[in-house]
Amino acid sequence: MANKLQVIPLGGLGEFGMNSLALRYGDDIIVIDAGMMFPDEDLLGIDIVVPDFAYLVENKDQVRALFLTHGHEDHIGAVPFLLSKLDIPVYGTPFTLALAERRLEEHGLAGRVQLRPVWYGRKVEVGPFQVEFVHVTHSVVQAAALAIRTPLGVVIHTGDFKVDPTPTDNVLFDLHTLANYGQQGVLLLLSDSTNVDRPGYTESERAVRPRFEEVFGRAPGRIVISCFSSSIHRLQQVFELAEQHGRKVALLGRSMVQVVETAHRLGVLDIPDHILLRPQDIMLVPRDKVVVLASGSQGEALSAMARVAIDSHKHLSLEPGDLVVLSARIIPGNEKAIYRMINHLARRGAEVLYGSMEPPVHVSGHASAGELKLILNLVRPKYFVPIHGEYRQLAKHVTLADSMRHVGIEGCFILESGQVLELDETGARVAGTVPVGRICIDSGTLDEVVEDVVIKDRQHLSEEGFVVSIVLLNRTTGRPEGLPEIVSRGFVSAEDGAELLERARWLVLETVESASAEERRDVGLIQDKIRRALRKYLQDVASGRPLIIPVVIEV
Amino acid sequence: MANKLQVIPLGGLGEFGMNSLALRYGDDIIVIDAGMMFPDEDLLGIDIVVPDFAYLVENKDQVRALFLTHGHEDHIGAVPFLLSKLDIPVYGTPFTLALAERRLEEHGLAGRVQLRPVWYGRKVEVGPFQVEFVHVTHSVVQAAALAIRTPLGVVIHTGDFKVDPTPTDNVLFDLHTLANYGQQGVLLLLSDSTNVDRPGYTESERAVRPRFEEVFGRAPGRIVISCFSSSIHRLQQVFELAEQHGRKVALLGRSMVQVVETAHRLGVLDIPDHILLRPQDIMLVPRDKVVVLASGSQGEALSAMARVAIDSHKHLSLEPGDLVVLSARIIPGNEKAIYRMINHLARRGAEVLYGSMEPPVHVSGHASAGELKLILNLVRPKYFVPIHGEYRQLAKHVTLADSMRHVGIEGCFILESGQVLELDETGARVAGTVPVGRICIDSGTLDEVVEDVVIKDRQHLSEEGFVVSIVLLNRTTGRPEGLPEIVSRGFVSAEDGAELLERARWLVLETVESASAEERRDVGLIQDKIRRALRKYLQDVASGRPLIIPVVIEV
Repeated sequence: MANKLQVIPLGGLGEFGMNSLALRYGDDIIVIDAGMMFPDEDLLGIDIVVPDFAYLVENKDQVRALFLTHGHEDHIGAVPFLLSKLDIPVYGTPFTLALAERRLEEHGLAGRVQLRPVWYGRKVEVGPFQVEFVHVTHSVVQAAALAIRTPLGVVIHTGDFKVDPTPTDNVLFDLHTLANYGQQGVLLLLSDSTNVDRPGYTESERAVRPRFEEVFGRAPGRIVISCFSSSIHRLQQVFELAEQHGRKVALLGRSMVQVVETAHRLGVLDIPDHILLRPQDIMLVPRDKVVVLASGSQGEALSAMARVAIDSHKHLSLEPGDLVVLSARIIPGNEKAIYRMINHLARRGAEVLYGSMEPPVHVSGHASAGELKLILNLVRPKYFVPIHGEYRQLAKHVTLADSMRHVGIEGCFILESGQVLELDETGARVAGTVPVGRICIDSGTLDEVVEDVVIKDRQHLSEEGFVVSIVLLNRTTGRPEGLPEIVSRGFVSAEDGAELLERARWLVLETVESASAEERRDVGLIQDKIRRALRKYLQDVASGRPLIIPVVIEV
Repeated sequence: MANKLQVIPLGGLGEFGMNSLALRYGDDIIVIDAGMMFPDEDLLGIDIVVPDFAYLVENKDQVRALFLTHGHEDHIGAVPFLLSKLDIPVYGTPFTLALAERRLEEHGLAGRVQLRPVWYGRKVEVGPFQVEFVHVTHSVVQAAALAIRTPLGVVIHTGDFKVDPTPTDNVLFDLHTLANYGQQGVLLLLSDSTNVDRPGYTESERAVRPRFEEVFGRAPGRIVISCFSSSIHRLQQVFELAEQHGRKVALLGRSMVQVVETAHRLGVLDIPDHILLRPQDIMLVPRDKVVVLASGSQGEALSAMARVAIDSHKHLSLEPGDLVVLSARIIPGNEKAIYRMINHLARRGAEVLYGSMEPPVHVSGHASAGELKLILNLVRPKYFVPIHGEYRQLAKHVTLADSMRHVGIEGCFILESGQVLELDETGARVAGTVPVGRICIDSGTLDEVVEDVVIKDRQHLSEEGFVVSIVLLNRTTGRPEGLPEIVSRGFVSAEDGAELLERARWLVLETVESASAEERRDVGLIQDKIRRALRKYLQDVASGRPLIIPVVIEV
C-alpha cells in the first residue's frame, strides 16, 4: 500500500446524490464531502439515504479529516451520520461549515465536532496531503474545488461548479490557480458530471435578473419567490429588487429563516435596513408592498410553499393577482409533487412562473459541456475520473475527455461507488473494491436504520397487502380449535372481501384437518401447508398475491 | 333539461390522462373518448386507472354512442371498461378503431361491440347530434377533431393535435373545415391544453428527420430506436432510412409487432419489401446491417427496451458501438425508470440519444401556445373550455383565450372533471356536478377494482409496516391464556426487532391482565386498549407507527 494513492468513491458515482470520496496514501485517509440523497420512491417510508461508511469505520485509525467542498445537502447531509461514527476534524469555508453546523446541532453533535474554517489559498496539511481550497462559482456561495498535493502528484477535485463569468457578487471562479496547477502538472482530475448532457455554457446567475425585474415591474399583488435557501445569490437579487420597488421582504419556512440569518451574520448576504417583515404581518401590508421568500420549491409536504399552495399557511393566503415564482430546478423524482403544488397555486388564482422560459426564472449551478472542456484544458491532467453523476453522465463525461486526449490525458476511468482507482509510479488502474451501499434513515435520529428485508416487505405489502391466518391447535388432540381467524389489510376491502375471507377460514380449517398427525405436530410444516393453500386460493379467486403469514398457536 | 346542452367532463380536466367527456341534450348523451391514466406512485400496486363512469351507467338508456378522437391510451384505454358496462356503438377512424379493437380483444369483448368506422367529412347522426370528423395532425395517424352540430349550435372538440405544416405523410391539418365552421358560428370550443406552457409553434414531425439521418449516417454498429408503437410517422421514417442505408428492420415487443402489423394492413404504414428481419435473426446479421424498433420508451418493466438494457433479452445483446435512440417524450412520473434504463444501456457500452438536443430526437404531438391561438382565431367560438390538462394548464389556456376576446369569445370556463357546463338560449354557466372519480384496476381483468380504503391501507403498510397481536382469552375465566403472540412485517427486521417484539408481547399481556373483567368481556374494548398500549410503546421505543391490529380470540 505504501507509495500507492487510492481514490475510493463512497457515494455519488453511478448514482445521483450522497457524494463522498476518500483518498488514501499509505496509512492516511482523507474524506471529501459526506452527502445525503433523497430516497427513490421504492424506498418506502424512508426520509433520507446516506452512504454506508463501513470502509471508513473499519479504517477508523487512519482517517484524518473531512473536507467539505460546499454546503449543499448532497455534499454535507451525511456529516452528522459520519461524525457520529468518527471523531475527525472538518475543514470547509465559513459558510459551508455554518450550514454543516446547523445539521450537527439538530443531532446534538455541534459541540463535539472540530469545525475548522479555511479560506481560499490557505494550504491545510494532513498527513501526506496538502489541501488548498480554490474558489469556484456555484449556486451556493463559498464553494470550493480542492487541489490536493500528494507524494505522487496533485489531485484536483472540482466539487460542484459552473464557470460563471459574471457572478452576482463579482467573486470570480479562480481560473488562475487551476491554470497554475495545470502548468505544474496534475496527476488526476475529478470533475463534476451533473450537466455533461448540456452543450455550450451554463448561463450566469445574473441571467435571472431580467426575469425578476419583469416580475417586480408588473406584479399587481404579492410576489412569492421560492428557491433553495442556500441560493444566496438569488436571495441577494430579491432583496435588492425589493428595496428598489419599495416592497418589504418576509421569510417563510424554517430553513429560509435560518440560512438567511446565517448568511447575514457571515456577511455573505446584504440585507437592506428595515426591509424585513415579520411573517405574521404579511397580510397586514398592502399586497403590492410585499415579497415573500419561501422554502419548499420541491413541493415537499409541510414546507411553507406547499402549505401556502393549499391555503393552509397561517401567515399567507394567496389571492388572484398574486404572483408565485418557483426559482429552482425540478429535482428528478419530485416532478409530481411540484406539479401538484403548482395546480393548487393556480386554483388560488395566482399566476405561477416555473420551468423553462426566456429570460429564465432559474439557471443551473452546474457546468455544461463547454465549461467541462475548459477545465480539462486548464488542468490538463494525466488521469481523469468523472464524479457526481449517474452512469450515463459519467460515460458521457469520459467520451468528452477522450476526445481531448491532446491536452495530455493518458487515461480516463469510469468508477462507480466502491470501485477503487490505484495510482503509483507505474500508472493508474482500477484495483479492487471496498464495501459501499446505502443506509436508509427513517427519521431525524441517526441510529434508526431500516434494513433491506424490511423495505422489501414494505414493498410487497404496498403492492398486495397481507393476510394473517390464525389457527389454534389443541395440544392434546392435535386438532384445530374452532374456525381459524383471518386478518387482512391492503388486500380486499372489508365489504368485497368478507365472503372471500370467510371462505378462506374454512379452507384453512380443511387444510389443517386434512393434514396428517405428524404434520400437525410440526408447526413449521403445517404453516407451510396453510401458506400454500391460501396462496393458491387467493391467486385463483382474487388474482392477488398478498403477503401470507400463517400463525399456529398450540393451546 | 330540454333545450339545454350539458358539457360533462368525466376525466382529463384538472388531471393528466383518462380523457372522457359527455355531451347531453335532453335525453340524449354522446361520449367523446374513454381513456386511461397511468397511476400515481401513491396508488400502490395499481396498473391502470380509468374514469368512474357512474354517471353514464346511471343514465344508461340515454347514452347513444362513443366517439373516439384518436388511438392513444389516454383516449381509448378505458374503452373495454366502459363497454363492459354499456352496449353502445363506437365511432372512429379505421386506425383508431383498430387500436381500440386490440384492447377489446384482450378482454374478449371484440365480437360483442359495434365498431363503426368513419371517414373525415362524413357526418354521423346520433339523436339530436350531428358529428363530423375533421382531420388534425398529431403524433398518431388518423386523429380527428369533432365538429358536433347540436340544436343550440356547433361544438368543436379538438381532440389532441398540433398544427403540423409539413406532416411526413403530407396529410394536412384540415384548417379549411374548421375555418368554415368558424365563419358559420361556433357555440363552444373545447381545446387541448397539454402544451399551453410552450411559447410559439411545436416543431413538425419532419424535424426529427435530420437527427435520424445523422444516426443512420454514422452509427458503426446496431441502431436501436424506441418510440411509441402508435407513432406511425416516426416508424415510417425509420423504414425509409433503413432501406436507404441497407439495414434490415427487426421489431421487438408485442405492441410494436401488433401495431406495425395493423398499420401495414390498414395502409397507413409503407413497409419496403424484404426489409423485415425476424427478432431471432438480429444477432446473425452484421451489426451495421440492422435497425431494431423496440417498445418500452418509458422504461416499463418487462418491456423489450428494459430487457435489452439489462442484457436479458433473448434476441438482442448490445455491445460498445451500438447506438440507442429514445425517440419519445418522458411522461411525467416515469423519469426515474427511464434514467435507470439509460444508465444500464450506457453500462452495455451503447451510446444513448435522449432528451433535448438539436436537431431533436423527438418532437411533441401537441400544439404550443401559438397554435392554440391560431385555432381560437379560426374557430372564434362564443364560449371556450380548455380540456386535457392539469389545473395549471387549464388556467393558462383560459388566460390565453381571455387575451383574445376580440375574436368574439364571450365566456371562458375552467371546468374540472365532474363539473357541468350548461348552455341554453340565455347563455352558459357552470351548473352542478356529476359523480366522477378514478377507478383503479389491479390487473388486466376489468372487474378487479381496488377501493380507496385498500389503497390507504397499502400506503400505511408501505410506510410503516404492521404489527398483529394475538391474545387468547379463556372464555370461562376471562383471563389470557399464555403469552400473546406478535406477528410483524415491514416494521423492524427480525434481528433488531426480536427483543422489541418480545417485550411487546409482555406489554400486551399486562394490558389485558390489568383490564377490568368488564373490559375483557367486550372484545372491541379490549382490542382498543391493546391498540393504544402498543401504539404508545412502539412510538416511544422505536419511533414507529405501524398499522396495529389486535386480535382477541376467546377459547
